[in-house]
Amino acid sequence: MSGSLPATPQPADLWPDVQPDAARRLMLAGVESFARRGYHATTTRDIAATAGMSPAALYVHFPSKAALLFAISRSGHEQVLSVAREAQENAPGPAEAMRELVERFTAWHARRHTIARVVQYELGALPEEEYRVVASLRKDIEDLVRGLVDRGRAEGVFTVGDPHTAARAVLSLGVDVARWYSDRSRQTPEELAKEYADLTLRMLGVPDSPAG
Amino acid sequence: MSGSLPATPQPADLWPDVQPDAARRLMLAGVESFARRGYHATTTRDIAATAGMSPAALYVHFPSKAALLFAISRSGHEQVLSVAREAQENAPGPAEAMRELVERFTAWHARRHTIARVVQYELGALPEEEYRVVASLRKDIEDLVRGLVDRGRAEGVFTVGDPHTAARAVLSLGVDVARWYSDRSRQTPEELAKEYADLTLRMLGVPDSPAG
Repeated sequence: MSGSLPATPQPADLWPDVQPDAARRLMLAGVESFARRGYHATTTRDIAATAGMSPAALYVHFPSKAALLFAISRSGHEQVLSVAREAQENAPGPAEAMRELVERFTAWHARRHTIARVVQYELGALPEEEYRVVASLRKDIEDLVRGLVDRGRAEGVFTVGDPHTAARAVLSLGVDVARWYSDRSRQTPEELAKEYADLTLRMLGVPDSPAG
Repeated sequence: MSGSLPATPQPADLWPDVQPDAARRLMLAGVESFARRGYHATTTRDIAATAGMSPAALYVHFPSKAALLFAISRSGHEQVLSVAREAQENAPGPAEAMRELVERFTAWHARRHTIARVVQYELGALPEEEYRVVASLRKDIEDLVRGLVDRGRAEGVFTVGDPHTAARAVLSLGVDVARWYSDRSRQTPEELAKEYADLTLRMLGVPDSPAG
């Protein structure tokens, strides 16, 4: 499936690591229900019905509604973290690494906008222990971006006033894509991602490349 | 009340145009309840209890939960629109107007982060007719920012690839402040606003001012 197609995502594409397929179908039903009505207004009965299962079948895979939210939230954060890590692997310097990172981060939030909305906006609904796991993944993502900003400054590639705020703004632009992006948006996830990478490098004081 | 104090906001400060005080107290109770549990999981009984009133007293001021959400949403959008309009009034040029606009827009979303969260994330819960009113206010805000980007380009002050995306990014950075800002945040709304204005002008291709 091409990422730029607004086709209905298949559970196996969204969560290739989750088994069996029934668990993935419940996660997708959870995403759709939470995104539509919010976590607190959704019942496990709603989710099971959306997935075409009985409530009892849901409990086979997830002991509670909170466990389902946690599975969605943890998986989403792990995907974003690995997207961010991969972006740095082959980049020759901080500017190229930041471009890759913003492109992938933005494209993920556009392509997976419904999942991303639940992942980003229902954090407060996680039970305490589950919240700590997700908060630690968030910290890893933030540290990675902050580390890249610091590296770029140290190498004289980025010039920013307050590196904390700059790192925050880089992530914030990408996260907010989940709020406004829809399958009817003017640009594909990849087109938007490229524009956002250009804007981000400018924010960090990198002169426009001749091709840009 | 100074905007940078994390003091509990008073209903009369938040909605000076709304009368009587009971209506304002219900709007504040609505904001707190919707932000905590989401619109759909909140009952009018919850809101009345939070405001220390009876459900019957709520209906004196708002005929429904949707009417209360609409009052909160419309007022929030009107406040943001007038903040954005005022920013342009005394600015000598597009760069100064954009700086003012981003500073005020960002500070509003930080200072009023709980209201802003409801305003930005519960749009989908508005009934159709009320949604159209709010969508028209949003379009006014977007047109204003887009018009300013276009003016800056025409005057050779801004250089951007795609002006639509640039205008979107300007607003998006400020809106997302509502998601992550809290009273425990490191910076005051004004400090953050200044940093965000600097970052935004860079995104738009304005060279740093000597003072920055």
